[in-house]
Amino acid sequence: MHVITAEHVIYHFTPNMEPKWRVPAGADIEIHCVDGLGGTIRTENDLYVAVEYDHVNDATGPISVEGAEPGDILSFRIDRIRVASDQGCTLLIPGFGLHGEQITEARTRISKITDGSALVLGRFEVPLRPMLGTIGVAPREGRWDTVTPHDHGGNLDTSDVRAGVHVFLPVNQPGALLAMGDAKAVMGDGEVCSTGVEVPVVVTGRLEVLRGRSIERPMIETETEWITIGSAKEYLDACRLANGDMVALLAEANSLSWEDAYVLSSVVSDLRVSQVVDPLLTVRCCVPKDYVKSLFDRLERVR
Amino acid sequence: MHVITAEHVIYHFTPNMEPKWRVPAGADIEIHCVDGLGGTIRTENDLYVAVEYDHVNDATGPISVEGAEPGDILSFRIDRIRVASDQGCTLLIPGFGLHGEQITEARTRISKITDGSALVLGRFEVPLRPMLGTIGVAPREGRWDTVTPHDHGGNLDTSDVRAGVHVFLPVNQPGALLAMGDAKAVMGDGEVCSTGVEVPVVVTGRLEVLRGRSIERPMIETETEWITIGSAKEYLDACRLANGDMVALLAEANSLSWEDAYVLSSVVSDLRVSQVVDPLLTVRCCVPKDYVKSLFDRLERVR
Repeated sequence: MHVITAEHVIYHFTPNMEPKWRVPAGADIEIHCVDGLGGTIRTENDLYVAVEYDHVNDATGPISVEGAEPGDILSFRIDRIRVASDQGCTLLIPGFGLHGEQITEARTRISKITDGSALVLGRFEVPLRPMLGTIGVAPREGRWDTVTPHDHGGNLDTSDVRAGVHVFLPVNQPGALLAMGDAKAVMGDGEVCSTGVEVPVVVTGRLEVLRGRSIERPMIETETEWITIGSAKEYLDACRLANGDMVALLAEANSLSWEDAYVLSSVVSDLRVSQVVDPLLTVRCCVPKDYVKSLFDRLERVR
Repeated sequence: MHVITAEHVIYHFTPNMEPKWRVPAGADIEIHCVDGLGGTIRTENDLYVAVEYDHVNDATGPISVEGAEPGDILSFRIDRIRVASDQGCTLLIPGFGLHGEQITEARTRISKITDGSALVLGRFEVPLRPMLGTIGVAPREGRWDTVTPHDHGGNLDTSDVRAGVHVFLPVNQPGALLAMGDAKAVMGDGEVCSTGVEVPVVVTGRLEVLRGRSIERPMIETETEWITIGSAKEYLDACRLANGDMVALLAEANSLSWEDAYVLSSVVSDLRVSQVVDPLLTVRCCVPKDYVKSLFDRLERVR
């Protein structure tokens, strides 16, 4: 087990960021992540008054995976996301979030975490569904702050990035250069106020490098579904990316024309909201495995 | 049981549309609906080349509910949506749908319907999930074609409008003037190509009129959730409507400030895509009943 501590975090994904850890392909890893506020919010008197894009959403990493080359796929099987605190915070930030213009004063709500639930507002026992808000790799180009999602991953704020799934990311640079953080003990789809119950976590899982085909954007395989993910400034563009990738998968997996795959996707795949509050919007497209049985099984596992 | 046949359909919801049927409040009804193409598409050689807003999405009605007055809530408990054909159609229409600019030729796909599933593309057995695409009442003002969703309902294309739920609509005009149609045997959230498996249906359920509070927009109560629905030209505006209504519900049901209800909604409610292809976009916000136990139980039932 390779232990990756939170002693080094990034606030930007860049093509040439310097790796702080190196692990072999196929490694089992344990990654420690502070919360997305860097652990600075401890009580309801600690207020977060403005989003500082260069110092928020601390992402532990970068981790270089030996052997990963551009054009490969990085696979991260998430075995567990353990909430590593007995409390988490939810924030209202002036000008930020779906109703940001109505928020004139910062507000912090602390939820106690006990026995599988978060006690929200001191009254509501909400079952935990731990997830990673931010997970990504070095991009092909550009400098992406960890608040923004795009084709390299980043701040996808997608509730399906949870234990029991495989997250697939495109390898754009040698070593892939993975980083992650911004975990939530639980968050509703949309993340309407721009936070869930923000917590530090310890993540365990296995990293693998797949060779023989590439992907353009992040994907997820759950117990029951394949998920494509699109992020864009405009909602319909994000939908077109996520559904366009899904139509291509359905065509490939079933030897269908693009047109017939599009027909099938309209009937059997669901577009779902990931988040509506980040600088780019994120939408995912989900299809039961009945319609895409296997995708990456025959690819070479790099060792 | 009051039987409402498909002998009269509307293509526009208007404030002063003339009722074709009258039923008492509390009535059990059976409504017959042709498919959204008026039954014109029977084989894969029948093509639909352009959406004619004045002659598509046939909605059976209007039905005047005796005693319903502006400010009341019309409740329709849907007991069953029976698919009334052994086949349904899915259409690619040039220039229409999420990838409409890529559709240069119309295409029709017919799915056989047997034993609880639709056989899509002659190969995929897709379990039926019958739903109504269009359900609405006379609006407060304006002339709304049945392709467009708004506060009066209309073409919500929301997959939760199915058997087992209550649909709540604002009563804007005397008698409410309900109409419905545009059913799908099954449709993915998003309705990306602008159709699901389009079918005629027979709907049974109970109409009730609730008095003592009003709603601005359609809502749904399912076995497990409360759902608010927003439609707007811009996605984030639709999200603000649906989530804004949800925040108000959470505040009302739990005696919370708006700010704390907003915090709670960010953690426990999900924004979900209804459709991304109609003239206005539709988004819904869903919350488990754990957080909104009852809303309308104490309202007067008009008799």
